Amino acid sequence: MRHGGCIYQFNKERIIDFSSNINPMRYDINIDFKDAYIYPDLEYRELKEAVAEYLGCKKENVVLGNGAVEIIDAFICAFKRIVVCIPCFSEYIERAVIREKDILKIPLDENFNVDVNRFKDLKRGDLLILGNPNNPTGLRIPKDILLEIYEICTKRDVFLLLDEAFYEFSCDYDSIELLKDKSNVAIIRAATKFFSLPGIRLGYAYVSIDIKEKIDKLLLPWNVNSFANALALKFLRDREYLRVSKEYIEKERRYMLMELRSIENIVAYNTHSNFILIKLLKHNEEEIFRRMLEKGILIRKCSSFEGLDERYIRIAIKDREKNDIFLKAFREAIYD
Amino acid sequence: MRHGGCIYQFNKERIIDFSSNINPMRYDINIDFKDAYIYPDLEYRELKEAVAEYLGCKKENVVLGNGAVEIIDAFICAFKRIVVCIPCFSEYIERAVIREKDILKIPLDENFNVDVNRFKDLKRGDLLILGNPNNPTGLRIPKDILLEIYEICTKRDVFLLLDEAFYEFSCDYDSIELLKDKSNVAIIRAATKFFSLPGIRLGYAYVSIDIKEKIDKLLLPWNVNSFANALALKFLRDREYLRVSKEYIEKERRYMLMELRSIENIVAYNTHSNFILIKLLKHNEEEIFRRMLEKGILIRKCSSFEGLDERYIRIAIKDREKNDIFLKAFREAIYD
Repeated sequence: MRHGGCIYQFNKERIIDFSSNINPMRYDINIDFKDAYIYPDLEYRELKEAVAEYLGCKKENVVLGNGAVEIIDAFICAFKRIVVCIPCFSEYIERAVIREKDILKIPLDENFNVDVNRFKDLKRGDLLILGNPNNPTGLRIPKDILLEIYEICTKRDVFLLLDEAFYEFSCDYDSIELLKDKSNVAIIRAATKFFSLPGIRLGYAYVSIDIKEKIDKLLLPWNVNSFANALALKFLRDREYLRVSKEYIEKERRYMLMELRSIENIVAYNTHSNFILIKLLKHNEEEIFRRMLEKGILIRKCSSFEGLDERYIRIAIKDREKNDIFLKAFREAIYD
Repeated sequence: MRHGGCIYQFNKERIIDFSSNINPMRYDINIDFKDAYIYPDLEYRELKEAVAEYLGCKKENVVLGNGAVEIIDAFICAFKRIVVCIPCFSEYIERAVIREKDILKIPLDENFNVDVNRFKDLKRGDLLILGNPNNPTGLRIPKDILLEIYEICTKRDVFLLLDEAFYEFSCDYDSIELLKDKSNVAIIRAATKFFSLPGIRLGYAYVSIDIKEKIDKLLLPWNVNSFANALALKFLRDREYLRVSKEYIEKERRYMLMELRSIENIVAYNTHSNFILIKLLKHNEEEIFRRMLEKGILIRKCSSFEGLDERYIRIAIKDREKNDIFLKAFREAIYD
């Protein structure tokens, strides 16, 4: 399984998907269809303004993508060597292989934190991609460590790309506020996860001005569809949804971690996102995957992530009702 | 102006857009929104089946794109040198430049037909891209000439990519039927133009099996949004819309050509599409563009197409009411 959310090979109607990382609070879709009848604005003027306002940066620093993955791919195309810290989102490596780039894989430490002492091999012209929070670990880079990483990048002339698709779920510092107006840095965010709209395909990024034009060219013309455009103009300005949703996730995250930590024979890692990485101490992923599927629940096996093995699974945090269904089934699966 | 349809810099509500090439018969949008809440199927199983059925080929030969332009870009990435016949859709050259490819530009003949005698410099490993019908000329390659071109490509080990985004507007042979099961050939089509849905962003192609896997990898994961997916499952099966729409365009095309040919000091070229290339014999594009804009009509200036100059404009074929508004205004502009 290359990604979570692959429910299409199962009975879609009867399965609860804990394998993909989507906000359980659905944003209400209510848009006018007629925009689909004309070409989107090639410059996406209105949308870029809304994104800039949402991100707290200038319109001139905003790029848009057909999901965050198009922006990641454009950056990979623009550099010679790609550096990642594993385990990480598989597309960083996948796209780098497809684009025939050199790849340097640096392991995270034993608690899945970034270890700056391992950055010795970074060299001029590299692109360093870090998930913040990282997928599948869920951990955000602490503010002081991030500044230290940026410092190292600046010294070595390395470009820092932060993938913050899960930013809204974390509740700490704003990395765009921290790093804007600096050079050699970009920060990707996405509607996909937080607004629970993976189907609309919209990613956006703050990009430092030194590389903005190059990235803009690599991205395809008309890459954002009219529906995403129309919807984003609404949800990016909906501060109330943002606030309520953040609180809800925070509460469910605490609840899930507490409950999971009462279960024996597993390690539930800390998380700053809406998913939890779990280490199985007495089972392998396949056993638990099968047992959960029999109960109608899809989880994410993690051996496909470089740096993890068949002892790891990843689960999403959903609403209380589904979380309780999950916990009951999971206890049975583990103690069976 | 890089492309037609750039209405966003004008007063959107008050302008009639004759600069972009969209079917005037709008397809009725009526879909269920809830698909946007989950990830699209990474394999797009259902959609690929519907496309295969629509194209009359096997599902195994179908690739999908975020508009035709993503598929064009993927092919350009896969080859070393790109060969085009100018004038052509500007993105062929644009994307080849961005992807840092060598480019060979072969002029069409004086009537804007492909001249196979000019293909002497084609060499092993080239990608030949031909619009069929071609944009901005509107002309389809005659069946026997296409077979001759394919023959030359086979002999020289050149890959033939036909861009048939305007296929449904033309009323002759089916190039997929003609060339399927052959190697080194791909034929792109798109919902954008014929179903008047440029905003949904959907392109698809028949791709010969020898290169299918490579192209699939270059395309981004989840590249087609849920709305496009849901809508396409409906409109690709709506044969009645297809039939009625074809007839309507055919009628308006004849009407527009007849009317335009009664106007002095211009040449209205023949077309197999829903747009018409016009040569101005006594004016330049800027003069006519300004005069038409004053009357609330946007036309496409063509000097940005390599191989054309400021004597050419391109106009869309719309419904009778709008066509008559255009013709009245155009007569005034030309005779002014």
